[in-house]
Amino acid sequence: MLKAAINTGIFKELIDVMAAMVTECRMHVSSEGFKMRAVDTANVAMVSLELSSNAFTSYNATENEIGVDINKMKNIVAMMERDEILSLELPEGGHKMEMSFSGYKYSIALLDVNTVRKDPNPPSISLPGKVVISGTALNNSIKAAALVSDKIAFGINPDKGVFYMEADGDMDHIYYELAKEDLVSFIPAEARSLFSLDYLKDLGRVMGKSDQVEIHIGVDHPVKFVFSIADGKGHVEYLLAPRIEAD
Amino acid sequence: MLKAAINTGIFKELIDVMAAMVTECRMHVSSEGFKMRAVDTANVAMVSLELSSNAFTSYNATENEIGVDINKMKNIVAMMERDEILSLELPEGGHKMEMSFSGYKYSIALLDVNTVRKDPNPPSISLPGKVVISGTALNNSIKAAALVSDKIAFGINPDKGVFYMEADGDMDHIYYELAKEDLVSFIPAEARSLFSLDYLKDLGRVMGKSDQVEIHIGVDHPVKFVFSIADGKGHVEYLLAPRIEAD
Amino acid sequence: MLKAAINTGIFKELIDVMAAMVTECRMHVSSEGFKMRAVDTANVAMVSLELSSNAFTSYNATENEIGVDINKMKNIVAMMERDEILSLELPEGGHKMEMSFSGYKYSIALLDVNTVRKDPNPPSISLPGKVVISGTALNNSIKAAALVSDKIAFGINPDKGVFYMEADGDMDHIYYELAKEDLVSFIPAEARSLFSLDYLKDLGRVMGKSDQVEIHIGVDHPVKFVFSIADGKGHVEYLLAPRIEAD
Repeated sequence: MLKAAINTGIFKELIDVMAAMVTECRMHVSSEGFKMRAVDTANVAMVSLELSSNAFTSYNATENEIGVDINKMKNIVAMMERDEILSLELPEGGHKMEMSFSGYKYSIALLDVNTVRKDPNPPSISLPGKVVISGTALNNSIKAAALVSDKIAFGINPDKGVFYMEADGDMDHIYYELAKEDLVSFIPAEARSLFSLDYLKDLGRVMGKSDQVEIHIGVDHPVKFVFSIADGKGHVEYLLAPRIEAD
Repeated sequence: MLKAAINTGIFKELIDVMAAMVTECRMHVSSEGFKMRAVDTANVAMVSLELSSNAFTSYNATENEIGVDINKMKNIVAMMERDEILSLELPEGGHKMEMSFSGYKYSIALLDVNTVRKDPNPPSISLPGKVVISGTALNNSIKAAALVSDKIAFGINPDKGVFYMEADGDMDHIYYELAKEDLVSFIPAEARSLFSLDYLKDLGRVMGKSDQVEIHIGVDHPVKFVFSIADGKGHVEYLLAPRIEAD
Repeated sequence: MLKAAINTGIFKELIDVMAAMVTECRMHVSSEGFKMRAVDTANVAMVSLELSSNAFTSYNATENEIGVDINKMKNIVAMMERDEILSLELPEGGHKMEMSFSGYKYSIALLDVNTVRKDPNPPSISLPGKVVISGTALNNSIKAAALVSDKIAFGINPDKGVFYMEADGDMDHIYYELAKEDLVSFIPAEARSLFSLDYLKDLGRVMGKSDQVEIHIGVDHPVKFVFSIADGKGHVEYLLAPRIEAD
């Protein structure tokens, strides 16, 4: 059972975060809020999202697992005005979620959870380096790198005390570095890993809206991006596997 | 003979109204103003437009029937700045209309009226229910319905005292209702008819700009939309045939 | 050797001017500034651009000829914010130009000058008529003409004392004239030549941003457009060959 109301802008954030990686997912509803964890079809990237029940204007739920068609939600979200109230209602054992806003009542068929890929287990990895930068700076550097290559390296040079992003095309090269004083926070450690810009472009568009994004990196290890949504009442982690650096 | 001047914004309204349904039409010019009536190629929808001579800043015309290429007019209208004066001039028996604005002089070949489909006769139908709502609300509900289906039902439930719009997709459902107090005006009567959203999407874009749109409906009957253009000096009616509701 | 800094907006102007005609060109760097001259692939149009060293915020260069991939520059320029500083650095004999802005460092491979078409010789032609009009008026008349035809005539009627632009479609006709008092400057002389709108549409978009464009014309002769960029510190000439007027 779910009966809740939420600001349309916050619900849009939630859908945008998931839509950058998957077209459908399982949503775990409980008295504490919503939880989702999913991997992309190629098993290269993972998203975890938790939205606290206090991100809602009203919230009442029993434990439940529902299958959400993220693509369809994107279309419905596009109809919503900013800063209105969206009501969600799902009866116990129901297969259709009622979504009401601005006088509209949508009755949306849910996906059978058994047809939706199971939640992945979060890998246990240790990423020693950490920087915190603005989402805009992160997204801009991803767009800049995409001009010359299809891969980007994130790295830390502990001796120089800088975090850098670097892309190497067939002919052109781009390099962007930030020193300690340019960063919101900085835990230096030897780090350099290479990532596919295909994935990062989609994630960058979402993260570009955040004031601050934590970036956790290591040597030839995945990168983990951590940021908030819903004015801090939602927590998101994107994990992206590295590409092998060919010499 | 026609020699007239009109605000470019009003002329654009006129062309937009017609372009939502036809690519060419006959225009009846007289001392009273312009009149057009046309059906779409599939005979499913009809438009009637009357623009009074006092919608013009100057107007001088003798009775005439001219063939207008609406598509071409759309392109020319796109060149016009808002709130300028457009001069129209057609000599007696002429085949080219001179259109002047902002220093430009276009000489536009008219269509031979005999090659343009004759005006349809307006059907005599009686539509007992009537509501008046804002064009924005009407257009938004059309866009919302298009997310889940290719058909929409408009109806009145006289017992509940509500006007409703409803769309049924293969899996999803959307329902939107307005009570008497949400409507500018309301004449309740048993009514429910189903319409193709293909047509309504184009008409909705035009009607979305009107403060008020009258909707006349019946049971499995056409819908008639009535609204003003040119600050009330122009009158438009769209008529759309119903689709059969399959159970 | 080149080591210079320039406002990103000015560099964007330079790239836009060239991109309207060519995808690559030779750039002549000297202590006086940049010079480029190129013809389009069909040999119908020519561009000459000179940017004075005092258009730069700092400038230090020895004589050099470099091959510039204008297409690639367009993409990089699109990443730049307005009113920032772009640093350009090319070591003596280097094959990669370093471009830095907003923390980014691009290292851009230059083209081998021997693979880039040689500079054309400027033809010696005499164009007796001259008018000066705003870039906006010029660009608008090009767009207006494109609605009815793929060619436009520019002409001067010395008896009437007007400059005119005229386009003749299969069915429609457009005419736009400016008298002496509507022009910034006017040297009347018998003139009328016909030009392809294909080329003019691209050039018009660039010239539309200039306050003033000089137009030099003759009878069935090329047209020459002259205008400034970089607040007068850059000088551009576009030359376009006429089309033969078929009767």
